[in-house]
Amino acid sequence: MTTMTPENDLARAIADVSLLRGTFTLRSGKISNYYLDKYLFSTRPELLRRLAPVFAARIKAMEITSGCRVARLAGAELGGIPLVTAAALETGLPCLFVRNKKKDYGTAKQLEGVLNRHDHVVLVEDVATTGGQALEAADSLTEAGAHVVGVIATIDRLEGARENVERAGLLFDALFTKRDLGIVE
Amino acid sequence: MTTMTPENDLARAIADVSLLRGTFTLRSGKISNYYLDKYLFSTRPELLRRLAPVFAARIKAMEITSGCRVARLAGAELGGIPLVTAAALETGLPCLFVRNKKKDYGTAKQLEGVLNRHDHVVLVEDVATTGGQALEAADSLTEAGAHVVGVIATIDRLEGARENVERAGLLFDALFTKRDLGIVE
Repeated sequence: MTTMTPENDLARAIADVSLLRGTFTLRSGKISNYYLDKYLFSTRPELLRRLAPVFAARIKAMEITSGCRVARLAGAELGGIPLVTAAALETGLPCLFVRNKKKDYGTAKQLEGVLNRHDHVVLVEDVATTGGQALEAADSLTEAGAHVVGVIATIDRLEGARENVERAGLLFDALFTKRDLGIVE
Repeated sequence: MTTMTPENDLARAIADVSLLRGTFTLRSGKISNYYLDKYLFSTRPELLRRLAPVFAARIKAMEITSGCRVARLAGAELGGIPLVTAAALETGLPCLFVRNKKKDYGTAKQLEGVLNRHDHVVLVEDVATTGGQALEAADSLTEAGAHVVGVIATIDRLEGARENVERAGLLFDALFTKRDLGIVE
């Protein structure tokens, strides 16, 4: 029997709205028999409101583990933006948006927002598979002078993200794994 | 003498962090001697927290003007996403993210989130110049079956957005104009 804590109740609520069954090609190139459409939870304020304090607690835990005071949060376009916005509103920490590629008008740059050199940054991620997108975003932040402390994913599909992120010298945490969402392949 | 209401104090705070002087080519192709870097306010939770209730009040006002109950908010990538997220968290209304172009993996689509046919939608925009991006996003929403009620921009540069949006049969509102931000060209 599973005790329904508020957190695993939230995990099930996320699965209820965002878990799609079928055949999907993931960003990593892998074929999967399920897809978590992160937008199906990140566009719902009643779920974002519940996720925000969980992010805040995990950011605090990452500060303790790393011994670093986190100055800013970051999120990668597009899926990370609503999540990092909710986490920023909850914690009061300013954030950065990491673009996939440079835009060609206005003030052309890959990072949006303010970054001071050596700022300790935590990257907020949506669904982590191999961690590839998170590591690309972390590279962009590092090149711009940030000290990236770690990655906090909303959901870990348990397909290598933790190992790859830790191998890159960053901390890794996830609010939920696919198991918390009741996904058995 | 200008009386400093909480709203025009917020307008000045936005100008303080986001107004850049120089020579800029805008998305519309126009050359401008100023640029409002919307990310410099939308990445700051202390400003987003103050913008959110102003959006909520303007959405309510647009419901009264139109006689339509708003079912969803929408924001266009990338700049509209943090704003519509904050407005959704404030109002409890679910939101949609409108992509610039289709992505090629996972569930390929231009709108992210759930849209039911005939849902009344208000589009939340960052900085409106000619309104071109807002109208493109409104077209995407309409093609997908939404009834777009109107556009609420954070800042109106007063370069035709209102006229163009109204000519397309939509309501237009802006939290602030460039004059509220103290911009005199």
